[in-house]
Amino acid sequence: MTPTISDIRHAADRIRPYAHRTPVITCQSLDARVGAQVFMKCENLQKVGAFKFRGACNAVFSLTEAQAALGVATHSSGNHAQALALAAQLRGIPAYIVMPRNASAVKQAAVAGYGGIITLCEPTQAAREATLAQVVAETGADVVHPYNDARVIAGQGTAMLELLADVPDLDVIIAPVGGGGLLSGTALAAKALAPHIRVIAGEPAGADDAFRSLATGQIVPSLAPQTIADGLLTALGSLTFPIIQQHVEQIVTVSETAIIEAMRFVWERAKLVVEPSGVVPVAVLWEGKLDLRGQRVGVILSGGNVDLAHLPWQP
Amino acid sequence: MTPTISDIRHAADRIRPYAHRTPVITCQSLDARVGAQVFMKCENLQKVGAFKFRGACNAVFSLTEAQAALGVATHSSGNHAQALALAAQLRGIPAYIVMPRNASAVKQAAVAGYGGIITLCEPTQAAREATLAQVVAETGADVVHPYNDARVIAGQGTAMLELLADVPDLDVIIAPVGGGGLLSGTALAAKALAPHIRVIAGEPAGADDAFRSLATGQIVPSLAPQTIADGLLTALGSLTFPIIQQHVEQIVTVSETAIIEAMRFVWERAKLVVEPSGVVPVAVLWEGKLDLRGQRVGVILSGGNVDLAHLPWQP
Repeated sequence: MTPTISDIRHAADRIRPYAHRTPVITCQSLDARVGAQVFMKCENLQKVGAFKFRGACNAVFSLTEAQAALGVATHSSGNHAQALALAAQLRGIPAYIVMPRNASAVKQAAVAGYGGIITLCEPTQAAREATLAQVVAETGADVVHPYNDARVIAGQGTAMLELLADVPDLDVIIAPVGGGGLLSGTALAAKALAPHIRVIAGEPAGADDAFRSLATGQIVPSLAPQTIADGLLTALGSLTFPIIQQHVEQIVTVSETAIIEAMRFVWERAKLVVEPSGVVPVAVLWEGKLDLRGQRVGVILSGGNVDLAHLPWQP
Repeated sequence: MTPTISDIRHAADRIRPYAHRTPVITCQSLDARVGAQVFMKCENLQKVGAFKFRGACNAVFSLTEAQAALGVATHSSGNHAQALALAAQLRGIPAYIVMPRNASAVKQAAVAGYGGIITLCEPTQAAREATLAQVVAETGADVVHPYNDARVIAGQGTAMLELLADVPDLDVIIAPVGGGGLLSGTALAAKALAPHIRVIAGEPAGADDAFRSLATGQIVPSLAPQTIADGLLTALGSLTFPIIQQHVEQIVTVSETAIIEAMRFVWERAKLVVEPSGVVPVAVLWEGKLDLRGQRVGVILSGGNVDLAHLPWQP
């Protein structure tokens, strides 16, 4: 079921005691560089360092007591894993997290730090799904998909609710797109509250399955994606795709160079630690493929989980 | 003249159109690590990436039209230089900035980017003062000292005004100390509005002149300081020292290891780019020399200007 604006409002009420109301940051030198007024919704400053906490928290606190007692489970390459582990910890229930072996050490340590019970598997979609099915068979845990779940989509939409409360007169909102949970939640909130706002997505050119899905009218699988933006490797889902088809004006692909340059600029001038996936909306502005001169542009900096020992501008 | 709380309030009104009201950020994993409730006043997110903009802006906009027409001048190793350049640019007047040759490339470029007119000199206090005197003789510009100036001290105190408005029930406030402008402004605001708050300073052990000044009762010069916290190399001033003597309970020295570890932790977990000088208050908590368990501790993250090509945890 597609979430409604009412679902998003309920999600906001549900997660309020647990989630940060993240700040909206502006940066004159960024505005000067890209020629627009940019309002950065700082989900890198969200709990666990990513918007993912919103959706996971909404899902966990939507469960009945009986459901919750069996715990929750998911497979995730990173931020959703941390988010679900923390949300479950806050409710006092187990979180079973299936992670690919190549997930970064920082992300594995963070999941364990939030009390998540990790099962490692091969880094393929098939292995992840098979391992998750096995975990669920053993535990009876409720599966919280990283994006193809109405509770998760509604939770992700709460960031846009807050952004619009702080900056009501946006012309455009740009979100990154991987599986489409953040993008579809953002689009639903924007179109319900301020239908004139153009909803645009940014996607790495090296992982442009969502761009091609929108172009061809059917979900294109994400085969051998090549990008530093490791949070955006997944394909769209059956729930997120129709929402995106209906509400998203355009998906703009960006180069790896633009992602890295925009990331370094945001660190250096806006003083925000943002991960490559999180800075993709800024990369859209950076490359200037769209003419947004003088407009008021919201961007969702979706996360800030990076391995500080390996930065892309280091030799 | 020591500024009063009224001067600080006037400064807040004066700079409001230009300065960011910076957010106060909390981070559960930091709280768990240091055993206190930490409220980070994010002056790294201030214009020019440092609290210095507050004082510079207050000084520039305090000038009469006739004074302003001749411009402002200063010597500074970094953040104050950028701050004064931007404040002057906003008022449309020249800023003459004397900088030591060893100031980082990033900082020199930023000053130039804000329209500052740079004169480089040898990296000694004597050369800086002599060069500044020459610039002033040539231009008639008003000297805005980085810290030993009542207008600057009042401006720096506005960060504490804002922090107390957001978090009134602090037990302790910790600020870094170099020349003492931020610390004395913070102390004046804290003691006027909430006299029970303990005011504590953090200082690198390798540049502990303020610690020794407080211990001996007279200003100890800063001779051959050795620290990564390059914003805290200067000695206290004749204006800042008595304020600190009167209102600051204690200056706690911290090791280079604590500064670097705390800095990396704040980047990794709080997602904030903070410079070594700016994270010194967190390093005070990190080392645990003070027992602040369970207390509500404000820390001023004073700045975020770092050269991303040279991070202290990189080989």
